[in-house]
Amino acid sequence: MSASRSQNSRAGIDLGGTKIQAAIVGDAGTVLGSARCATPVEGGPASIVTALAEMVREAAKSAGTPIPARVGIGTPGSVDARREGVTGARNLSGFDGVVPLATLLAAELRSRDDARHQVVLGNDVGVALDAEARFGAGADLGSFIGIWWGTGVGGGVVLRGERWSGRGAAGEIGHVVVAMGGRLCPCGRKGCVEAYAGRRAVEERARRLRDRGARTKLFKIAAKKDKTRLTSGVWADALEDGDELAERLIGRAVHALAAGAASAVNLLDVEGVVIGGGLGTRLGEPYAERIAAAMQPHLFRDERPPVVRVSKLGDFGGAIGAAML
Amino acid sequence: MSASRSQNSRAGIDLGGTKIQAAIVGDAGTVLGSARCATPVEGGPASIVTALAEMVREAAKSAGTPIPARVGIGTPGSVDARREGVTGARNLSGFDGVVPLATLLAAELRSRDDARHQVVLGNDVGVALDAEARFGAGADLGSFIGIWWGTGVGGGVVLRGERWSGRGAAGEIGHVVVAMGGRLCPCGRKGCVEAYAGRRAVEERARRLRDRGARTKLFKIAAKKDKTRLTSGVWADALEDGDELAERLIGRAVHALAAGAASAVNLLDVEGVVIGGGLGTRLGEPYAERIAAAMQPHLFRDERPPVVRVSKLGDFGGAIGAAML
Repeated sequence: MSASRSQNSRAGIDLGGTKIQAAIVGDAGTVLGSARCATPVEGGPASIVTALAEMVREAAKSAGTPIPARVGIGTPGSVDARREGVTGARNLSGFDGVVPLATLLAAELRSRDDARHQVVLGNDVGVALDAEARFGAGADLGSFIGIWWGTGVGGGVVLRGERWSGRGAAGEIGHVVVAMGGRLCPCGRKGCVEAYAGRRAVEERARRLRDRGARTKLFKIAAKKDKTRLTSGVWADALEDGDELAERLIGRAVHALAAGAASAVNLLDVEGVVIGGGLGTRLGEPYAERIAAAMQPHLFRDERPPVVRVSKLGDFGGAIGAAML
Repeated sequence: MSASRSQNSRAGIDLGGTKIQAAIVGDAGTVLGSARCATPVEGGPASIVTALAEMVREAAKSAGTPIPARVGIGTPGSVDARREGVTGARNLSGFDGVVPLATLLAAELRSRDDARHQVVLGNDVGVALDAEARFGAGADLGSFIGIWWGTGVGGGVVLRGERWSGRGAAGEIGHVVVAMGGRLCPCGRKGCVEAYAGRRAVEERARRLRDRGARTKLFKIAAKKDKTRLTSGVWADALEDGDELAERLIGRAVHALAAGAASAVNLLDVEGVVIGGGLGTRLGEPYAERIAAAMQPHLFRDERPPVVRVSKLGDFGGAIGAAML
């Protein structure tokens, strides 16, 4: 049993700025075993590679299999054409310049294990979207747009069941321009969706407004939760509590996401929009409905709007997608 | 010679609100003969169908061939799935509800000619884009966005050499939102590219500003040219003359087109942008360069911007594309 499992199963790791999620995944996208830890914030690539190896080992143990021969990693930043190295993953400790992440993890696994493992990299949001397309919220949709609403706003475009990557960098729905000459985005450009909707940008806006005297419970809630940042959970609690500033800022985020999504739908006339990411999955269905409602006045063919859904695989999407690499 | 020509050639007609352009087109997209007239503004579908038949007959005569067995029409509005009827072509006299344009033209041709003709409809901008993809400015590009800058702003998306139509209505780059809560668009929505860039919208803005006392030669130039509208030629003359209002309004249009184009490029990472339409081809290369420059600050991958070009087939693009239907 465990031998046949190990033949068909693959390992996937979702490497995020906050957490590392590993999973052993079967043919139908089912999670056979998993493990998770906080992403090391010190020690550079070496400590992150050690953590990746440990998590994949633990996940295999929980699945009752050896570590599968193929290991995929979904990583932030840009993955090179050979799918071995990553650049620009600024959220990860010491990831300046090119990091040969696949080679490093393969060596680390081999150092404690007789078997050889093939390690392949993919973009974190891209692989999560692949998983949703195959096993999740997009499985019944021929074409859809994914909007990953988190610290930033990532995304992707799936056409005829396959992710469209263009010259390698397609899917930047967070940098669709919704306000000419508008607010400064963390990316340095002006008026992008992310400038109004990304968790980092909205948090910065909340701090500035509080410093100017705006009343809000956001920072009290964060302190009570022992958080230095306004995490998705903090926003969710503040909204539930009826906090006016939180409502105003998230309302603005919903409108920006909707304008960007409607623009993409007017351009591509896809069947659906799938909302994922930290804030997207935390705020869930009611906010997917708000986004759908805010898209409506911008849709060119408003008599048949696309379906708008929350991602189905949630926290496991990235690891499942990485396993499919 | 003329017999072999007629076997391989096809007829295409570009039916616009202003003019009807017919062409007999050979295998390589070459125009073997053509004819053009003003679109009848009275008499409804019947008078337009008569004009279409006359133009295709004249074009065949100038090519020295009989009317080809296959005739394609590029029309404004929405074409039905059987490619026989058109709805919503509001710029055409009496085109309310569904007009069975293919059937009407086939009957008209048959009434004066022994042969049967198969008539097929396609969207006007769509077929022009198909022609550019196959024989024109997009022939060497794997993927590109077309922006048809005219009375309105139409467009399309070409991926792997084929136009992506989504659920049938993709390509509405003119209704990408570049200003949340922005200016009212002729389509009734707010903040679309077309609200800032479409000839109709910009003309209306110019009239309003003139009525409020803004100085401009735009309307004098139009009167001198015997035009009641601010045509592409009027805008070109005013810009050449250094008219400040014209420069300001077209500058704003360039920025809106650029923001919409950059959004599409950030989403799809295509290789190029092809600018067509009445204003686009009239203002030509210098304005394609201005659009490219205005896109640059919005591009997420600004180190390798897409090429930005003017359409190559110009006035014949629609007829050539219609012939390919």
